[in-house]
Amino acid sequence: MTLEGKMLIGQQAIRGQRDAIFAINPATNHRLEPAYPGGTQEDVDIACQLAWDAFDIYREIPLTDRANFLETIADNIESLGDELIDRAVEETGLPHARIQGERGRTCQQLRLFAKTVRAGEWLDVRIDNAIPERHPLPRADLRQRHIALGPVVVFGASNFPLAFSVAGGDTASALAAGCPVIVKAHSAHPGTSELVGRAIQSAIAQSGLPEGVFSLIFGSGREVGHALVTHPTIKAAGFTGSQSGGLALWRAAQSRAEPIPFYAEMSSINPVFLLPEALKSRGATLGEAFIGSMNMGAGQFCTNPGLVIAVQGPELDTFISAAKHALEGSEAQTMLTPGIHEAYEASLKTLSTSKAQEVARGQNEQGPNQCRPGLFMTSATDFLADETLQAEVFGATSLIVACQNEAERRHVAEHLEGQLTATLHMEDDDTEVARALLPVLERKAGRILVNGWPTGVEVCDAMVHGGPFPATSDARTTSVGTAAIFRFLRPICYQDLPAELLPDALADDNPLALNRLVDGQRPIK
Amino acid sequence: MTLEGKMLIGQQAIRGQRDAIFAINPATNHRLEPAYPGGTQEDVDIACQLAWDAFDIYREIPLTDRANFLETIADNIESLGDELIDRAVEETGLPHARIQGERGRTCQQLRLFAKTVRAGEWLDVRIDNAIPERHPLPRADLRQRHIALGPVVVFGASNFPLAFSVAGGDTASALAAGCPVIVKAHSAHPGTSELVGRAIQSAIAQSGLPEGVFSLIFGSGREVGHALVTHPTIKAAGFTGSQSGGLALWRAAQSRAEPIPFYAEMSSINPVFLLPEALKSRGATLGEAFIGSMNMGAGQFCTNPGLVIAVQGPELDTFISAAKHALEGSEAQTMLTPGIHEAYEASLKTLSTSKAQEVARGQNEQGPNQCRPGLFMTSATDFLADETLQAEVFGATSLIVACQNEAERRHVAEHLEGQLTATLHMEDDDTEVARALLPVLERKAGRILVNGWPTGVEVCDAMVHGGPFPATSDARTTSVGTAAIFRFLRPICYQDLPAELLPDALADDNPLALNRLVDGQRPIK
Repeated sequence: MTLEGKMLIGQQAIRGQRDAIFAINPATNHRLEPAYPGGTQEDVDIACQLAWDAFDIYREIPLTDRANFLETIADNIESLGDELIDRAVEETGLPHARIQGERGRTCQQLRLFAKTVRAGEWLDVRIDNAIPERHPLPRADLRQRHIALGPVVVFGASNFPLAFSVAGGDTASALAAGCPVIVKAHSAHPGTSELVGRAIQSAIAQSGLPEGVFSLIFGSGREVGHALVTHPTIKAAGFTGSQSGGLALWRAAQSRAEPIPFYAEMSSINPVFLLPEALKSRGATLGEAFIGSMNMGAGQFCTNPGLVIAVQGPELDTFISAAKHALEGSEAQTMLTPGIHEAYEASLKTLSTSKAQEVARGQNEQGPNQCRPGLFMTSATDFLADETLQAEVFGATSLIVACQNEAERRHVAEHLEGQLTATLHMEDDDTEVARALLPVLERKAGRILVNGWPTGVEVCDAMVHGGPFPATSDARTTSVGTAAIFRFLRPICYQDLPAELLPDALADDNPLALNRLVDGQRPIK
Repeated sequence: MTLEGKMLIGQQAIRGQRDAIFAINPATNHRLEPAYPGGTQEDVDIACQLAWDAFDIYREIPLTDRANFLETIADNIESLGDELIDRAVEETGLPHARIQGERGRTCQQLRLFAKTVRAGEWLDVRIDNAIPERHPLPRADLRQRHIALGPVVVFGASNFPLAFSVAGGDTASALAAGCPVIVKAHSAHPGTSELVGRAIQSAIAQSGLPEGVFSLIFGSGREVGHALVTHPTIKAAGFTGSQSGGLALWRAAQSRAEPIPFYAEMSSINPVFLLPEALKSRGATLGEAFIGSMNMGAGQFCTNPGLVIAVQGPELDTFISAAKHALEGSEAQTMLTPGIHEAYEASLKTLSTSKAQEVARGQNEQGPNQCRPGLFMTSATDFLADETLQAEVFGATSLIVACQNEAERRHVAEHLEGQLTATLHMEDDDTEVARALLPVLERKAGRILVNGWPTGVEVCDAMVHGGPFPATSDARTTSVGTAAIFRFLRPICYQDLPAELLPDALADDNPLALNRLVDGQRPIK
């Protein structure tokens, strides 16, 4: 497939009329063809109108059709073969193996949502049958299901060009919910976006769906992104990116005449708590493993362990020595974009002028836009006094906070902002320390891990990739895992609706074989 | 029990230090003793700190204890006997029978939430067991449950002094979710609020719960309400009231350093669609029944039918004649407060100067603050041209919109703002007309009724009392029915948490006998 540099508006491929962006190969700083001119307000209007026209149809197609459509997208992405892998590697500087793994995850995610759509539990069907003989007032027949919110805007993320981008988790969950999707492509990987976008566009034609179920638009977040989020036909949006970008769009969504849900997954420093017995029994191993997790993808993961919290002493020193040693042997890795690399360097400069002390740096850069890893350390007192030490450093640099005792550690934990994850490294004899920390961590994070590393987010039913503000704009949801579908749904109740008008999900004979709550009970299907 | 005019801060009864409010008997305009001085910022701080201190404990008490606590509140409210009924009647001007019915509903609601708490489906437990042998990467053990958001502020509503007030649906669902509650009492019924507040306060002592699980504060929404919503310990709020009041507090909640969910149930005009065959076969009956629903509680229901949409012709004329006749015989009824009565009069004045024409008025006022019902009519063209005709008239006045044909009716439907309810009156032969309207109504309303009247909101599993903006600030939820509990919860995932630290809900042997999703399946318990 030849890349055309065009936006996908419904079944059309359209050249934008605004300033063109080019992808940059961050490993070489070379510009990649073709040019991707940005969309105009008119392009946004057309895509939104198409999405609106498609909405009433798409949200009511049979669940099996919707599931098959998601699977067709996955098949089409796989059919792109090496062309997709090669282009994504060029555009992101990420290794081949990583992009291949991410493709697998993206397709598995689409197929898992297909399964979720078929099972239909997300409809949350509740039926309260009429009780005409009830006194003093009869009860009407009341039936609840969930329906799609409306057209959804998805913002591609820089750090997962497949799994959090054009056909990533936000798109998959919104399509699964029955919402048409308009993707604002991330400007760092337009070619990857075009390829994946065409895979979705083809799947729509193959599935016989209304063309407005999907569009892909290029351009800046401030212009095209803002125009999309404030368009009256748009009823929700999903975003993964920086706190400043996320909050600006979130504010735009809240300032509309009709405010809409804006799901922003923003910043998290993912604290790791090293408990005493774990530190004592395997401090050196932990130090090495920690650097391994920190270095993954040049530290450009939402769940990168950016903060280690431990009680000072010789056991912590052992951990630090091992981490230092591992770090000093770590090669610099290419970052996603020149801009991200620049921001990383600026963050390091800020850290260097703070009260935090440099413990070690990794090996020198060997090419453009490389992330030279870093490890810093500070006292709990200084950490508590300086809010800027909680700022996310996007890249492979972490901060160790040394506490005087468990009381001070708990103080530090209470002082943390909302996080995607919190991790405990512990042995059996640490159980009581862990038990005391747990309620604090539950209030702070969406996922709590024991004896693992937060990088690596399983796509499954039980996953929560979310957490209290500012990790996300809405702690009531997750952006990874099947529960992500609930972000794009709302409940609706039908009272005494005649049988011939009832949606299949609510029909008396349960033709979809759904798990339904009937008069407060769940009868065996 | 002697009313003391005091706020309830934890287990204390405290006299406020700010300007006092008095309840006014709207039927006589007489001031009711005692004085209720308002709370200060310091009172807010103390109540919030108590709620915060109670939170980690209360959210983890056994489900049976939490359920028993809700039932104890219901018992205590019933034990207040006639004193509660008499005071509520005095403070609201509502009839005895109505207040008695509302007490029954309030207690039934608390008991239904107790049942919901025990069943534990709201925990939405999802378990994905570890797959250590999976290649290329093993799967960790992942377990999800829902936990309470944190302390919640509830704003008492004027129009349901029991069911949407101190121990109403918001309080019941928040307590059920595991959130401490601080109620900002509505200034129109402080005595009722004190009585019910003491019933909750006693239930806390009887149940051995931390005192901060409940507080009750008096004062203005702009001062005390704002102070509560912007307090850092508060993690969500529930509100039922006017659009201006709701939006002001909603904005305050979104402007916090950490924005929080603010569930405002605001305004709705609850369109009623009279379809041709229904109008033909029972126009007169419908006209009479419509006025009955419109007059309920002097029209001061969130679900009052404020808009009738029909195609013009002799059948509509029959409906209007019957409605006119019923209305002209309708007595004026006392409204909840002098302020509400004043606002009603102002709305009527606005309507009179609009293009809408007066069809009829009810009988003249016989006392202070009485609502003289009204019926107006307009053409679809004028309705579409004048947004102010969509403004809610809080009271017993409705507007009939006469359309030229079904196409124009559909136009009017598409033009409507978000609503709590939409109603169809139809016969079998109206099915195709109804089918064409249904998708529009689904996008506009939280509940769709057939051949009933929207007043009367069943408290059950399937109810949705919510809907798109501006009916509520968050269409993804309901404020009535058991699903209301989800407003105050968030998901959390535990990865490889040792068995001894796992909450009971997530333990391997399922000690709470919950309905859980395990590896994508729901095993029989």
